[in-house]
Amino acid sequence: MFDSGIGGLTVLAALMRALPHERFVYLGDTARLPYGTKSAQTVARYAVQAAQALSRHGVKCLVVACNTAASVGLDAVRARVRALPVIGVIEPGAQAACAATASGHIAVIATEATVRGGAYQRAILERRADARVEQLPAQLLVALAEEGLVEGPVAQGVISHYLAPLFALPSPPDTLVLGCTHFPVLTPTIREVLGPQVRIVDSALTTAAAVRAELLDAGIARTAGSQSLQFMATDGPERFARVGSRFLGRTIDPRRVELIDL
Amino acid sequence: MFDSGIGGLTVLAALMRALPHERFVYLGDTARLPYGTKSAQTVARYAVQAAQALSRHGVKCLVVACNTAASVGLDAVRARVRALPVIGVIEPGAQAACAATASGHIAVIATEATVRGGAYQRAILERRADARVEQLPAQLLVALAEEGLVEGPVAQGVISHYLAPLFALPSPPDTLVLGCTHFPVLTPTIREVLGPQVRIVDSALTTAAAVRAELLDAGIARTAGSQSLQFMATDGPERFARVGSRFLGRTIDPRRVELIDL
Repeated sequence: MFDSGIGGLTVLAALMRALPHERFVYLGDTARLPYGTKSAQTVARYAVQAAQALSRHGVKCLVVACNTAASVGLDAVRARVRALPVIGVIEPGAQAACAATASGHIAVIATEATVRGGAYQRAILERRADARVEQLPAQLLVALAEEGLVEGPVAQGVISHYLAPLFALPSPPDTLVLGCTHFPVLTPTIREVLGPQVRIVDSALTTAAAVRAELLDAGIARTAGSQSLQFMATDGPERFARVGSRFLGRTIDPRRVELIDL
Repeated sequence: MFDSGIGGLTVLAALMRALPHERFVYLGDTARLPYGTKSAQTVARYAVQAAQALSRHGVKCLVVACNTAASVGLDAVRARVRALPVIGVIEPGAQAACAATASGHIAVIATEATVRGGAYQRAILERRADARVEQLPAQLLVALAEEGLVEGPVAQGVISHYLAPLFALPSPPDTLVLGCTHFPVLTPTIREVLGPQVRIVDSALTTAAAVRAELLDAGIARTAGSQSLQFMATDGPERFARVGSRFLGRTIDPRRVELIDL
């Protein structure tokens, strides 16, 4: 699996719970993050480079654990690594949103590039043609998550800035999709701002379920043996380990993060 | 001149006022920004690539208009483009801080990498050995500036988060150095938070004065002819023009921003 940086570690945490016997290789393109403010062409090119590096590691399945890369780079990745099943986080996220919503009114917060690409909107409308999807770019939330400023008045203020205008309307969305793998660490504060009635959906759990189904269907799931983790980053193994531990929910040893070039 | 992105345009604005007859070439490495969270080695490598691209354009003087690159990459750049005078923003910023402070107690807000490199502290102490320098990493301010969220409660909240603890002390600093070229667009809000008594220093003006002195000393200043501007970016000319216009203080035409690869 790969991500622009450390956000995808929230997806890895879900995969580790769903697949207790697999060997995971996680690549974070930390030298070139964030992807969310870059052009679609550049993100697609970076995604292909990351996919190629992972396919050289002999992986059996590729997870694009970055909403921006999945939004604008999935076709390019699939075209380049044809032999591998490739699973992005957008389709599972859209599926989770459609399962969660009652009214069909869904808000998606994501990076600028993901919003511009419109993949969530398309994926939701394919499943539920009468859905009403509001896409909001919320780039500052990436920086908040990266800084670990996930609670308190600053985080509340930034979240309100993005969400309060929409959710204060007479008929607000009933479901909020966290369309960036950085955002789940902000869930408790988002919940404080929005109140208990809004359903908050992140794609980590449904992506993990999709990966599990794919491996079982293809008959390539490991059913015994111990789980293993391998980390690679394109810059700053120390920062990757320090900040990433918060996203993974367990300590990452910086000496076990391999520095690579793409 | 080059910067990781658009922040250096605040320096370009000062250079344009100080040098009305020069031809400026500005390179923003927007594909790889931000530099401030990257390792010193990576930033130095990127800075050398940018300097080489500019030296191929036949420039007569090179300005490193990014505090992070000037903090950790200046020696590497100077070693690579020996024929050119190279001016960074740190030395002029330190000079301005020493001129502004009465008490010698100076706060510097900057990116994580600039703080880690410690160049401001060294440059200030070289000029004033009894100075007391407090360096604060303030990474979220980069994201605020990039998003154009430069005033209102969100910007005030983030600025207070970083600065209030230090400036609420019994004997606070009397001078604040904006140690990142993104920060000058936040000056009015920083002023609101800190009150009128603190001196706010940005290195744009003193850098412009240093460049002017260098060109005059070397006898290579243009004293006639019209000013010209040329822009290059490594990603997203449209975004560069849109967000950059705010930093430069005048409209940038996206069609005049050349997309290049480093």
